[in-house]
Formats: sequence, structure tokens, C-alpha cells
Amino acid sequence: MSIGVCYFPEHWPDERTEADVERMADAGLEYVRMGEFAWSRMEPEPGAYDFEWLDRAVSRIGDHGMQAVLCTPTAAPPKWLVDEYPGILQEEADGTTRHYGGRRHYCYNSEEFRRESRRITEKLADRYADDPTVAGWQTDNEYGCHGTLRCYCDDCASAFRDWLRETYGDIDSLNEAWGTEFWSQTLNSFAQVDPPRHAAAGHHPSRLLDYYRFSSDSVAEYNRLQVDILREANDEWFVTHNFMSHDDLDAYDVAADLDFASWDSYPTGHVQVQHEAVSDEELRAGDPDNVGLDHDLYRSAADAPFWVMEQQPGDINWPPYSPQPAEGAMRLWALYAVARGADVVSYFRWRRCRMGQEQYHSGLLAEDGTPDRGYGDAVAAASDLDELASVAAGDADGSFASPDADVALLHDYDNLWASEIEPMTPDFDYWRHVETYYAALRERSVHVDVVPPTAELAAYDAVVAPTLYLATDELAETLTAYVEGGGELLVTMRSGVKDAHNKLHDDAQPGPLRSLVGARVEQHESVPESLESRLTYGGREFGCRVWNEWLSPTEEGAEVVGRYEGSMADGSPAIVRNAVGDGSVTYVGTWPDSDLTGAVVGDLLDRAGVETTDAFPAQVRASRRGGLTWIANFGGDSLSVDAPDDAEWVLGGPTVGPAAVAVTDANLSSLSPAEE
Amino acid sequence: MSIGVCYFPEHWPDERTEADVERMADAGLEYVRMGEFAWSRMEPEPGAYDFEWLDRAVSRIGDHGMQAVLCTPTAAPPKWLVDEYPGILQEEADGTTRHYGGRRHYCYNSEEFRRESRRITEKLADRYADDPTVAGWQTDNEYGCHGTLRCYCDDCASAFRDWLRETYGDIDSLNEAWGTEFWSQTLNSFAQVDPPRHAAAGHHPSRLLDYYRFSSDSVAEYNRLQVDILREANDEWFVTHNFMSHDDLDAYDVAADLDFASWDSYPTGHVQVQHEAVSDEELRAGDPDNVGLDHDLYRSAADAPFWVMEQQPGDINWPPYSPQPAEGAMRLWALYAVARGADVVSYFRWRRCRMGQEQYHSGLLAEDGTPDRGYGDAVAAASDLDELASVAAGDADGSFASPDADVALLHDYDNLWASEIEPMTPDFDYWRHVETYYAALRERSVHVDVVPPTAELAAYDAVVAPTLYLATDELAETLTAYVEGGGELLVTMRSGVKDAHNKLHDDAQPGPLRSLVGARVEQHESVPESLESRLTYGGREFGCRVWNEWLSPTEEGAEVVGRYEGSMADGSPAIVRNAVGDGSVTYVGTWPDSDLTGAVVGDLLDRAGVETTDAFPAQVRASRRGGLTWIANFGGDSLSVDAPDDAEWVLGGPTVGPAAVAVTDANLSSLSPAEE
Amino acid sequence: MSIGVCYFPEHWPDERTEADVERMADAGLEYVRMGEFAWSRMEPEPGAYDFEWLDRAVSRIGDHGMQAVLCTPTAAPPKWLVDEYPGILQEEADGTTRHYGGRRHYCYNSEEFRRESRRITEKLADRYADDPTVAGWQTDNEYGCHGTLRCYCDDCASAFRDWLRETYGDIDSLNEAWGTEFWSQTLNSFAQVDPPRHAAAGHHPSRLLDYYRFSSDSVAEYNRLQVDILREANDEWFVTHNFMSHDDLDAYDVAADLDFASWDSYPTGHVQVQHEAVSDEELRAGDPDNVGLDHDLYRSAADAPFWVMEQQPGDINWPPYSPQPAEGAMRLWALYAVARGADVVSYFRWRRCRMGQEQYHSGLLAEDGTPDRGYGDAVAAASDLDELASVAAGDADGSFASPDADVALLHDYDNLWASEIEPMTPDFDYWRHVETYYAALRERSVHVDVVPPTAELAAYDAVVAPTLYLATDELAETLTAYVEGGGELLVTMRSGVKDAHNKLHDDAQPGPLRSLVGARVEQHESVPESLESRLTYGGREFGCRVWNEWLSPTEEGAEVVGRYEGSMADGSPAIVRNAVGDGSVTYVGTWPDSDLTGAVVGDLLDRAGVETTDAFPAQVRASRRGGLTWIANFGGDSLSVDAPDDAEWVLGGPTVGPAAVAVTDANLSSLSPAEE
Repeated sequence: MSIGVCYFPEHWPDERTEADVERMADAGLEYVRMGEFAWSRMEPEPGAYDFEWLDRAVSRIGDHGMQAVLCTPTAAPPKWLVDEYPGILQEEADGTTRHYGGRRHYCYNSEEFRRESRRITEKLADRYADDPTVAGWQTDNEYGCHGTLRCYCDDCASAFRDWLRETYGDIDSLNEAWGTEFWSQTLNSFAQVDPPRHAAAGHHPSRLLDYYRFSSDSVAEYNRLQVDILREANDEWFVTHNFMSHDDLDAYDVAADLDFASWDSYPTGHVQVQHEAVSDEELRAGDPDNVGLDHDLYRSAADAPFWVMEQQPGDINWPPYSPQPAEGAMRLWALYAVARGADVVSYFRWRRCRMGQEQYHSGLLAEDGTPDRGYGDAVAAASDLDELASVAAGDADGSFASPDADVALLHDYDNLWASEIEPMTPDFDYWRHVETYYAALRERSVHVDVVPPTAELAAYDAVVAPTLYLATDELAETLTAYVEGGGELLVTMRSGVKDAHNKLHDDAQPGPLRSLVGARVEQHESVPESLESRLTYGGREFGCRVWNEWLSPTEEGAEVVGRYEGSMADGSPAIVRNAVGDGSVTYVGTWPDSDLTGAVVGDLLDRAGVETTDAFPAQVRASRRGGLTWIANFGGDSLSVDAPDDAEWVLGGPTVGPAAVAVTDANLSSLSPAEE
Repeated sequence: MSIGVCYFPEHWPDERTEADVERMADAGLEYVRMGEFAWSRMEPEPGAYDFEWLDRAVSRIGDHGMQAVLCTPTAAPPKWLVDEYPGILQEEADGTTRHYGGRRHYCYNSEEFRRESRRITEKLADRYADDPTVAGWQTDNEYGCHGTLRCYCDDCASAFRDWLRETYGDIDSLNEAWGTEFWSQTLNSFAQVDPPRHAAAGHHPSRLLDYYRFSSDSVAEYNRLQVDILREANDEWFVTHNFMSHDDLDAYDVAADLDFASWDSYPTGHVQVQHEAVSDEELRAGDPDNVGLDHDLYRSAADAPFWVMEQQPGDINWPPYSPQPAEGAMRLWALYAVARGADVVSYFRWRRCRMGQEQYHSGLLAEDGTPDRGYGDAVAAASDLDELASVAAGDADGSFASPDADVALLHDYDNLWASEIEPMTPDFDYWRHVETYYAALRERSVHVDVVPPTAELAAYDAVVAPTLYLATDELAETLTAYVEGGGELLVTMRSGVKDAHNKLHDDAQPGPLRSLVGARVEQHESVPESLESRLTYGGREFGCRVWNEWLSPTEEGAEVVGRYEGSMADGSPAIVRNAVGDGSVTYVGTWPDSDLTGAVVGDLLDRAGVETTDAFPAQVRASRRGGLTWIANFGGDSLSVDAPDDAEWVLGGPTVGPAAVAVTDANLSSLSPAEE
Repeated sequence: MSIGVCYFPEHWPDERTEADVERMADAGLEYVRMGEFAWSRMEPEPGAYDFEWLDRAVSRIGDHGMQAVLCTPTAAPPKWLVDEYPGILQEEADGTTRHYGGRRHYCYNSEEFRRESRRITEKLADRYADDPTVAGWQTDNEYGCHGTLRCYCDDCASAFRDWLRETYGDIDSLNEAWGTEFWSQTLNSFAQVDPPRHAAAGHHPSRLLDYYRFSSDSVAEYNRLQVDILREANDEWFVTHNFMSHDDLDAYDVAADLDFASWDSYPTGHVQVQHEAVSDEELRAGDPDNVGLDHDLYRSAADAPFWVMEQQPGDINWPPYSPQPAEGAMRLWALYAVARGADVVSYFRWRRCRMGQEQYHSGLLAEDGTPDRGYGDAVAAASDLDELASVAAGDADGSFASPDADVALLHDYDNLWASEIEPMTPDFDYWRHVETYYAALRERSVHVDVVPPTAELAAYDAVVAPTLYLATDELAETLTAYVEGGGELLVTMRSGVKDAHNKLHDDAQPGPLRSLVGARVEQHESVPESLESRLTYGGREFGCRVWNEWLSPTEEGAEVVGRYEGSMADGSPAIVRNAVGDGSVTYVGTWPDSDLTGAVVGDLLDRAGVETTDAFPAQVRASRRGGLTWIANFGGDSLSVDAPDDAEWVLGGPTVGPAAVAVTDANLSSLSPAEE
């Protein structure tokens, strides 16, 4: 478990690099990531390479006992390359060129750019194949950033046609799969299909979904091109990519080609752009579940300990507001990442950059080389991890041992994309809906895997499946087998709506999930705030919002356990539980408030026999790793924990301060938040 | 009076069509509309036609005693046609192509598309010319939907130049009419005129108004092309088109070529996008005057009973929110449409579609064929209409007899367009201003014709004219003659502002209406909410908003009847009444709140001797048709009506439930809302 | 000191022009501006000129003892010219053409348009070179209006490359200056540089800043082309240009080529679009400091009495709302302009125009020729100025004598542009920040010059420098010399952040200003409203917002005089005062509320020994000119002034009514607002 940092030797004079590397080692850092935007430095003119500056940086890193993570520099091709091949630029849906000047100015489907990417990647792979300081590689950087996941250029048009040919074989199959009789959209040949460019009316949702799939596949294919070259050069290298928080790129798919996934974590930024309202505490330290969902997703995506490749080091430049993080927050984030399964947390960046687009992004050092707000936190985190390593239980590979997760949270990109295509209310957001359930699991300290519905589920005591929007017979069979075998399953609103091609099923919602869920959705409605309603569950009344489904039980084992109160749906079933084999399925046909989510999830965990804690406050989360229990407090107030008298505290103690972390050898289940 | 439905046999297997048609007949439906988006099914490849599926559908409809309404399929040309003639696509004002992928992807002025439209229309007309089941035709579908009324392509440029040549004859006349000396815009030839494409500064309002007129005329001309072919094939067919609610296309102009107008009514959707604030009741059932204004407009546009060609059947896919309609609302809407003069109400659609862009649009049946929320309402409405037919008084043509309207509400598209071009405040909306006065008339149960200022007015006891923005000497003469002959006229703010070419008059506002109105507008101002003021009228104080005109009487017969109170305009005349010949004119120089509108309109009706009821609550409206009185309650609470003891109730009774309708033989004037 | 008017003889029949000119003279007007949009009238066809209409207008103006100000008509080239040279049109950053149809439809860097501009300017200059009625010229009209300051066409691309060659000499210097190592942006040649066109990610801030500089320089160069021609024709003519309020064009730079600057003042419009919240009083009369900052800026820009070339005459057409100005406001604005240093105030326009884009813009006359709301005010203002001239003290050139300003407010466009490029919060606005300090100076009746940091400062008792964002060693030396020599300097948040090329300094903020300011910025943060904090200064507590810098004193003479209270920054220094030589520097590291700004500025003025008054209410401002004291009341309530018993009141008296002005011979310092 260690701390790293992102560094740009090309930004600084050579002598500063020498000093910087020494200071990194002194700070306790172990990994240095470099090179992801240095193409114009590596190859200042076509075919004229210069790697000496990078050689020197790598060599110094090795001299100080650290390791280097190198990146392919393809995220920012030089201007000479763009001028030589202007066709590599992406296009907006309205035909506007996405010009050179920022970054990510290339189309994944440009053959010219693929050839150039191969060339520079091979050069780099050759040069460092035998360098023991280079531990591994990051491919490119944040695929799809700045809205570049989807491009609408002619290269994409051709590639999309090929993708469709590959997927459907013949045009009649596509017509059948999409349902092109609607609005006279029947096609005679694949050559007739274009990207979904600007049109007066909305596009066919099946065509859009395939375009979203194709676009994600294009990235995966492009990434594989780089991975293969790197693996061939040195098969001991790890290869990873740095994903972005709650994103639209299929992380499961891309991660399948990687050794592990990494991601870029900016808690005070992501909470501002991903949550509809942000508290002062969240502006200072982020929301633990907003961050944690990504930790668990990227850990699960490659089924391996992940890295935080970029960890927020202080104030940052891209959210609407840039308040200073709470004192200690940079340490909190690192330790919470490790608690959730990270092996390395690498701060972005070493030193605030004097030039270009990110001058308002802090580093561990200020621009004048003095320690900045995050520096002390990073040093402390490195030291903490050393301390913890001395007492923690380890896995075979030397990482901290992680328990197996008791609960799987189902999540995938088909459901994300399809619900983005037809949200049916401005208030529905797939990620937020998933986060609602994730928070309910985590407030009881449950260890969660975030996996797609195709994952192997048998080992989980319970499965929570928010919005299984697309549902096939295969999925129904898988889930039914899971429940029949004693599993406890929770399925939520907007499940079973569509088939794999984004068409409604012949059967009404939940389509092929009907006999499993034991209920039919009689009606659904989206409601603005003024029409929000209440429902009763377990004898108590709760709130619900955004989307209401009026259910009717259809199976003998199905029991109505929640009903709408007041409003027009008064008395209509809202939550149904269906006994199936040795397990049961709960279907929640609305978006519950957090208390109701907690109650429903709590009951599920009880039935499944999952070991939990009492519910912690929203800003405090407990985790288990390395045979230790980690309590992270993202809030602005201290929290006292009731712990056994013989609990040993490796870090901190039973009163966990604001933006602080405590670690104890006590079992998770022996802890609880103290009564106030 | 009957109920119909929209159906898409091309979406379903042949055997389902057979079953569907039988079920339609069982439900009491009498008309089935088909074919408006089926071009790619009718002509899968260029010149290869397939009408057999449609033949079968028509034949089954006939077999079950129903009638078919066929549509030309031009609203959605197939991709092969677009690929053959890419020039048919429209362009945005900024030059962006409006691509294929949704619908309405053609330019009305494309000669290629006109030729193709003629071809497919002739094919269809020939094929069904002798089929007794085909009652008539709908041309195309919702002209101008999705912002396609105006296109900025080169075909439109040429056509616009021709339109201007036709309108003005020589370029000097255009220069004079528009006033091109302003900002150096004098033109030397028609060839210099382009569509008003993207520019840094705003376009000349006279050029814009002519472009709006030209665009509407282009649709009318395109529509005529289809109408002529259909009429030639079978002159017994009716030909109609389905207009859209409060729209920008000149309905009077297009309807002049039709047998009757029809429109597509979605009460819970339209109220969300057309009103600035929406109550919970309106989210559930819409606003009766928002709907009623369109009923009366489209009835008046062709001076004939109209159809609701598409009636909302339940939840719909396109407004911001899709709450479920109130129980019974689908019946309420149908019966209220008939009360306002509809002959046929056709639900859209028979069954929820499994594919394409409208999967979130309900049908009378759910996607699995079970009755959906609207089905029972549709069956009930069909049965109600049979019941009512047995007691109602009829016209010569077999429709329910309608009384002549006592009041004309003046409305036209020149005034709409010109006020859209220069709204001068974000809060002015022509349709909403017209609706304000429509509501005041309808709350007293007045029967209203919605007609343009060029209509024959002599037969009306009173005329309400909101925002006669463009005013000519001819209009002044017409209105003066009407008032001198004893008419009572109400004219409102922003009248007499411009001439026919959207230029100010030489005389100050109200220009040529000055001697009629008897007042001059000394100043006008738009005001944000913080500057809203009060005014006194008839000894009471009311609110007014958005726009204030400070008036001064200029004629001897002119009397100040309303004055601003407080604010900067304190004491200034706001409402003036002018005696002219045997009648009088009231001019209201502001946007009154609903109480003041009611008071001013009530006084007008009293002076005109129009028979009214007491004011009903905003959600309840009474109408007279077929010798019966219809009371429609769009509200969420029951309303009790005081009626004569001998009143017979054909439907319901004197307590009208939420979203319910009652029909009695009692006279309108004998009814009143019960005191609460 | 006189009143003028803008007039468009090309809009009216010849006989009306004759009558109009006579009425202007009767109203007491002395200048008539004409011709700025009349190119198509002057040259109806290529090479066919018609100036007779203008000759007649000029001649009549001379006949009535008035003078003409003529304009080059280049702001609106005729359509025939655009059709001949379509390349003159500008392009948006996304490549969309800015088409003909409004105005300003030309690119400053089009060689074709420059040639055509020279041609028409020479024609005009020749024709009127010997006409004694023509006093001088306005070049073009409102350069950059409607977002046309920056164009992204190929002509601009070429010109930008030349500008960079000129600026940097060789590409390595550019790479060094910009810092192009960031994101692989190193360039091999100037030919590789494009305008910053639409890109997925943001552009390099150094590239953007140079593009903003280049764009402003392009206008200056284009303007010079016209100025040179006019000067050559008649060197007695004055040449000016009408700038626009708080704008992005470098007024210092353009004004360097002019005899004096003029600007277009629309108080109720500018306050709506430039202030975040607008009171009812401001909707009626504007904010005196919003207007006053422009008066002082444009007076200072050419270091000469300025003109208000367009003065709002009543209601106007372009802000969100168009409320009527307060009674008397049009006189108030004219007299306040003179009080702040205007020599001529010219109302826009004589008569409301019947055609084109500005029909909702009032004139002194209504469209029917009757006096409109502003007419009486204009006549009164003209008469007032005559009255005042009889008692006022004059300068050598015959203007009213103006005192030298005691205080310089530093302001420049580099700082504006750079902070627009990286605002780092939606709530930072450079102009508003400058206005905050301007208001604090003006509420104490201080006479202020608004000058760039490069100005000669020695003569000022105090210098207020808000957001010296870009700071060089030279600037540091200049300011240090000023303070060492006894000057009192106030520097505010976000100063010393960047070097001249928009890169961070090697040293932390405030970079080269560190030893002068005596403090280092340890952290900065932008804060939303919920995180706004308090601070203590001089024993009192105040509010601060938007941006917080946590300071630490670094010099011996530096004293912490303000500290944050509460929030996360509790106790951190917020305001530091540093004794340097004979003067001192105060650095304010946040955006203070108005009370705090007043307190800090008040202390500065006390230390500097600047003569002030007590603070006047926000809507009332006192000025000194012509040996007289002018009190202008922009508020809705009367204000009483305590004045010496022997004060003579040339206009009004010690109780200054709403929207009124009073002028007395009493000294400024003898006056104060009466206690309420």
C-alpha cells in the first residue's frame, strides 16, 4: 500500500527535476507517474525523437528507490500531427469540428491516428522494455474526457457501419432488432446508417443505444491496440488506465484488457457536478458514498485492488467553485481509498504548474516549491500506510487482505445509456439512483462489489439491483436461479422495461422479470416536486419522489409490503416482496427517500443474514481491510464510536475528528456510533 | 359524433391487426386513422410499392363497420429517398443540416421533394379512390412540428425571393415597405435577399415578418399540392390536416384548403409547455381554456365541426413530466371536445408501441394488449355519445346542432409572429394574452368563435380583440363600422403599434385605431415583477403586470374607466372607453389579472346583451351543443350546480365529480355554480 | 458645455429634415451627429455616390448655428458590398458565418474591407474637408458591438500569425512565453497557430490572452486607418469614437489615436445587464457609479473632456425590461455627465424611428413628432448648461475647469481579459470588482482618474488598484517607487497572480509584488454563497464573499489589519498593511461588502490626506467642476444637504429631489448629507 504522485519533468528545468525527485523520496512516495501529455516533447518534429529527459527522470526515480509509471502520450497529439492529418479531429453531432487547442483532439476510429499511436507506443515500449524502474503503464489519459467519448465524423460513420455488420450480419436483422417500422426508418443496407447527427426530432432510441455501445467499443478497441504493444514489449509490466468517476465509458469492458483499473478522484469537484445540492461539509470534503461507489466500482471492474491514479491534492480548477478542502481531507481521501481496496494512491500533481490550462489546480507543492495544503497530508498518509502495514493481515500478493463482499450492487452501462436516452423526467439520474442504494448498504458498513448483471452472483448473500432497465430472458433466468438458491434480491423502479435493443417487451413491465418479481407495473409516472407522495412500509410512513410505479402482485408468493399514501396513487402497491424458492425478491417501484431506502435495504440484509453495523451518519463510513477496521469521517464534526474495551487503535482513537480516519483491530460488528 | 383511434398496422404482425380491428369495433370506435409514417413500408425501395398490408387493414375495418382515415406518408420520407436527394433536408439558421433520423426531415420548398410527394400521393389516391371504407384523408402530419416550420436552405432562399417578387413586384416597393434605409439595408434587387441566417445583431423585423409569412405560405402551398391530388381522385373524400395546439403555422390559411380542421390534443402536455406555472390539477387534467381555445380556434378556422385527430390516451412522452392523468380525464377530454364542436375524437394510439421514439407514449391498450388507463374512458365516451345522440338536437348534416357564437375573439398569426419578433420583455406571450381573455369569456359560459380580424363581424354581439398589433386603415374602418353599428368592442394593450409591414405608424400608437379607441398611448413600458402595479376600475382595485401603457383620451366620447395606482404611473389612465355610434370600444392598456379581466369582460358582455352564466370556477366550463348543456369539470374537486327542478340529466347529475362531465337539457342560463 | 442629438436624415423625407433641424435649434441643441449607418444611401450602387441629402442636412445645421458631427458609415456595409466580397463576413469560433442582416458584419482584418473602408472614408473626407459646419468625426460606430470584437475567420488566422511574429520574433520565444510544454502544445512555426476555434477542452490561457490582445489591436489598427484619412483631410477636425460602457475593447489603446473619447450611455439598460440584482430605483434611473465609472474611464482614456455621444432619451429596446425612466432622469444623466467631465451630451436619437431594428428605442420626439418623455429634459439640460456657464470657472480651452484628481483607480484590459479567461467562479466579474472600489471613493465625493497601471502616478495622493492580476517586475518597481515616495496604495485580491503572458510566477502570489505588499497568499479559494464568511477590521465585523485569500505577512513592516472570522479560515489574515518608505500599501485578500470597502478606502484616504465628504447614500453623488459643486440624486427619495449658510445655489437648492441635480458655489468639503 503506498502513495505516489503525478509528475511532469517536461515542465521544469532539468536541475529542478533532480531536486524534485529527491524530495518525493523524502516525502515517502513510492510511485511517480509521467508522460501522458508529452508527445510534442518526445517527438518535437515528425520522426525526430527525444527521450533523454524522460530517461533521466526515470533513472533518478530508480536511484531514489521509487518506481515509475509511464503513460502513452496519445491524449494530446502535437500540432504538427494534427496539421499532417486533420482528419483525426473529432466532429460534434452538428458537424462542427472539435479543433486542436485543448486535449483529446483525436477520433478513436481514425486509421491515421491509430497508426501514429502504434508508432509512438512502440517507440516508448522498446525504449523502456528493460528498465527495472518502470513498473508499468497507463494507456493514454481519461478516455472520453471533455465529452469526447462520442464523435460524429465520417470515420466513425464507416466504423459504425462495420460494427453493425458485425453485430447484426444482415440489414433485416438490424431492422427487426431496432424496430425500424417506426417513423419509416426501415433500412435497405448498412451503408444507409449514419451517426445520429443533429436532427429536428429525436433519434430512434435503439439506434442511439447502439451508437453509445459502438462508441464505447471504439475506445476499448483503441485501448487494446496500446495494451497489446506494451504487453508484447514486457509482460511483467502492469497496464492500467485512469478512468473518470461516474462516467459513460464502459469500465468493465475496458478493464477486461487491463491488469487493474485506476481512477481519478476529486471529491470536492465530483460532488458539485454530480449531486443536485451540496452541503458545506461536502464542499469541503466530498461525500463518502459518491467517492466510495467509484472505489468499489473500479476495484470490482478488474476484480483486483485498484489505484487512485490522480488524487485531489487541494483546491482544483474545474468545478463551479473551488473552496479549500478541509484540513486533513487529503489524508482522509487516501486512507479511505485504501480502506475500499486501493493499493496505491497517487496525488495529482507534485507541484502546481505555472503554465497552460491547469494553473488553478494545486499540487503537493505550491508553484514556488513550498509545501502546499496537501503536502503534509500526503506525507502523513505515506507514514500511516507504513504503520498499518506493520500490523495488517496480508493477501498472498502482499496487499492488505480484503474480505469477500457479502453483497453485490448490480450496475451497468447499457442501463445507464438507455436511461440517459429516455430519462422521461429531468430528475432521473441513473448514477444517483445507484448511489442511493449504495449509501444504504454502506451506512451499515457492508462490503459491496459493484458488478454488472452478468457477474457470477452465487457467492453473494444479497444482491441489490437498481433499475435493471434492459432485461432479457437470460437475465431473468440468472436472477431466478440466484434467488431460488436462497439469494435475497432487491430490484428497483424502471426494471424490466426494455429488451437488449432498447425496445419494449411484448409483455408489460417488468417483462421477463415478471414471474421473478411477482408483480406487474400497471402504470408508471414521473412527478415534479409538487406531486411527490408518501408511502407506508413496515407500519411507518416515508417519502418517495421522481417516479412512481403502481404495482399489482401477479404471483402467489407476492406480498404487498409498501403502499402509496395520499395523492392520486393512494393505496396502490408500491413495494412488493415475492418468495421464490429459498430466497425472495423485493421490488421497489419508486425512488425512496433515504430513510425508506435504509429500511428496505436493512430488511434485505437481515433476511440475507449479512453482518452489519448500526447505521452510521451519512458522512461517516466504516470498512474492513487488512484484518483491521477503518473509520473515515468526511463530516465537519467529530464522531464517537462505541468500541470494545480491548480494542487497539492503530491510528487515532474512538473519537474520530473531522476529516479524520481511525483504524482499530476491533471487528466491524463490535463497533457502533455512540448515542449522542 | 363518434370516437376513433390512430393505428399503425405496419408495426404489428398481420394476425394481430386482424384481432386489433375486431377489438376496436367492440370498443365502439368508428374511425381508424392510418399510414402517416409508413412510406418505407409502402415503398420499401424506389418504385417498388407494397400496399397489401394497408389494403388488408382497410378491408378489415370495413368488415367491422368502421371507416378508415388514410394519411399521406410524407412526414417521414425513407432513408433511400434522403440519400437520393440529400438536398431535401432542411437547414438551421446557422447552416447546420437537420439530418435524417427523426421525422419531418424535408424542406417544403424542395422541388425534388414536391415531385416525390406528388408521386406517392397519386399512388395512394389511385389505389383507394374507389374504396368505400376510406372516408377521407389527413395530409402529412403536424406540419412544422419540432421547429421545422422555418428552414434556411438555398431552396428556401430562392423561393423566398420569388415570394417577395410576387408580393412586392419591384425592389423599390420592398425597400419602402420594409424601411431598409435603417442600418444601410437598402437592396438593389430581389437576388440580394437571403433567409435571415445567423447574424451577430438582430435581423430587420420587417424582413423577419415576411420570412415568417413566407414560411407559413410555403406549407400552405405544399399542402395544397396534396389536397388537389386527393380531391381529384375522389371528390367525396374529406381532406383534413392535424394541426398542433397553439402553433406558429397559419391555421386559417391552411384550413382554407381543407374540409375541416383537426388538431392533436394533449392537455397535460400542452399546459406544461404553454403555461408559466402549472397547478397539480392541471398536471392531472390540463386547463379547460388552454384546451378550449384550440377547440374553438380549429372549429372556427374552417367554420366547420372539427376533429380531435389525436386525443391524449393516458401518460405521454414529451412534456417535462409525465404524471398519470386523473381517473376519467380521457373521457372528460373527449366529451369536452364534442361540447366545443368536435364531430370525431380519435385517440392516439390504439396500443403502446414497442419500438422507436414514442415507447413512453401510452395507448388505449398497454403493449401487452391489456386495457390501459384510457381504454375504459374511450369505451365510455363512445357509449356516452351514442346516448347523447338519442336525445340531442341535430344539424342538417347530422351533427349535433351548435348555437351561433355571440362573441368573436380576434386572433391571427401576423400579430403572433410580429410580437414574437419583438416581445420586448421575456414575460409577453401572445397566446397567453389571448387565453387570458378567452378564459374570461368562457368562465361565463359564452360561446366563442376564434377568428382573424378580417372575419365578418356583424353577427357578433361583442368582439374581443387582444393585441391588434398590426393595424391598417382597412382594419380601422372595419372595426369602426362594427362599433358604429352597435357592436361592443374590447381592444387590448399593444394594439395599433405597427403597419402591415411591421413598421411603426407615422401616428403614435394606436395609429389608425386612434379615433376608434379614442385615446393615444403616451408611453409604454415593460416591467419586471418588482415593478408590477395596481389599478382601479369600477371602484375596485386590481393587479396588472408585464406591460403598462399610459393613455390619454383624445376623443370627446372617450372616458377614463381605469387608472394606475401607486408606482410611477400613479393616476395615469389605463383603461379608456369610447362611445362610437351605437356601440362602444374599451381599450385596456395593460395585462390585467384574472379578476380585472373578468370584470372588464363581464361589463362588455352586459353592454352587449350577451346571455351569460355566473362565473364558474377556473377548472369548470359549461357549453351548449345539440340542444343540451354540457358541464365539464377539469378540477380535482366536485362541483355542485344549481339547476331548475325539472332539469333532466342525460349524463351525470347536478354534482359534477372531478374530471367528470354532466349533460342536461336545462338551458345554460338556468344553471349556476352552487354557493359553497 | 452643450447638448447635442443623433439624427438620421436618410430616414425621413427631405422636408421633415428641414423642420427637424429648426426644432433642434429651438430646443437649444448645438451638435447633430449623422451618417454612421448610411453607406447604402451614400453609395447606393458600387461607385455611384449620393451625398446631396447629407449636404443639405449639414447646410441646414449650419444655417441654424449648430455644428455637425459626421460618421464614417463602415459599421454597416451595404448588401452589394457583402455580395461582392463575402469574405468580409466574420466567423464564430465554431466556424458559423456571421451573416448580413444586422450590423457590424465585417472582419477588421479583411484586406478587402479595409480597402473599401478607405475608399468611402476618403470620399467623405474630401467632400466635407472645407465645410465649416462639420466640427469633427466619429469613426465607425461602437466597435465590437454584438460580440463582434473577436472573429475566427481565416483572415484573422493570417493576421494573428503576423501579430505573433511581430510580438515574439521567433517561435521558441512564443513557446517560452506561453508555456507550451503543457499538454503537448509546443509549436514548430507560427504557421501552426490558429484562432482559438471550438475545441472539446478549454484553450491555453496564454494563447487566449494573446488572441484577445490581437483582436483589440486589430480594431485599433482598423480605426487608425480611418483616423489618418480624416486628419489628413482637415487637421482642425476632431476625431472621436463612441465606446460602449464596460466593454472588452481596449479604450486606452484606441483613444490614443483620438482627440477625445466618447461613449454611449444607457443607464437603465447597462445596470440591468451589468449588475447581478437591480433595485426598483436602478430600473428607473440607473446606478450613479455604474455610469460614473464609464464617465471617468473615458475622460481618463484620452485625458480630455469626453462626450456622451449617445445619451438614453427615455425607454430603450435592448435590456430585458424597458421600464420608463424616472421623471427628470434624462436631465439628471446629462448634468451628471458634465459634472464628471463631459463637454457634450448628445441624445440618441432625435425622433423614434419607424422602421428597422430599433423601433422600440425612444427619441426626444415620438414617432409622430410630439415631444417624448426626454424632450423637456433635454431642453432643460441645455438651458441649465447655459446658466451654469455664466457662473462657472473655465479652463483655457473654454470648458468648465476641472480639478485634478487626487486618486487614481487602476484598471486595464489585460487584467479584464485574463480574469475573464480564468474566472474560477461564476461570481467573479472584474468590472463589478472595480466598481465596488469606485463606489467607495465616490461616496466620499473623491475625484477619480481611471487609468492603466502604466500611468504616471506621482501626482496622485492615493492609488486604488483592484485585482492587479498580471504583474511584472516593472510594475512592482513603479508601484514601489510610488509608495516609497509617500503614496498610499490599496491593492486587492487576485493581484500578482500571473506574468505578462498569463503564466503563474515562479514565486507564489503576489509574485513580484511580494515585498511591496509584504505578504504571501498562502491559499485562495472561491466560495459559493453558503460558504461566505465574516472578517474583523478596525475592531468591527464585516462580510466578505466570492474569493478568500489566506495571507501571511512576510515583511517586517507588514501588519495584519483584518482577519477572517468563523468558517474554515477563522483567524487567518485577510487584510495586511505594509509600511514602505514614506507610504504604505494595504492588501485586501477578499471581496469586501460595501461597508468594509468603505471603511478600508476611508482609512486610505485619511492616511493620504485626501479631502473627502461624509459618505453620501448609494444613489447620491457629489462632484466638483467649473468651480462649482454638483449634487446628483439618482434615488427615488429627496436628499437634504447640509451646506454653509452663505452657499449660493445655481441650480436647485439644498433639498435635492428624486432624479434631480443641484449645483452650488459652496466647496465640496463644506457639504454633507443631512442626518435623517
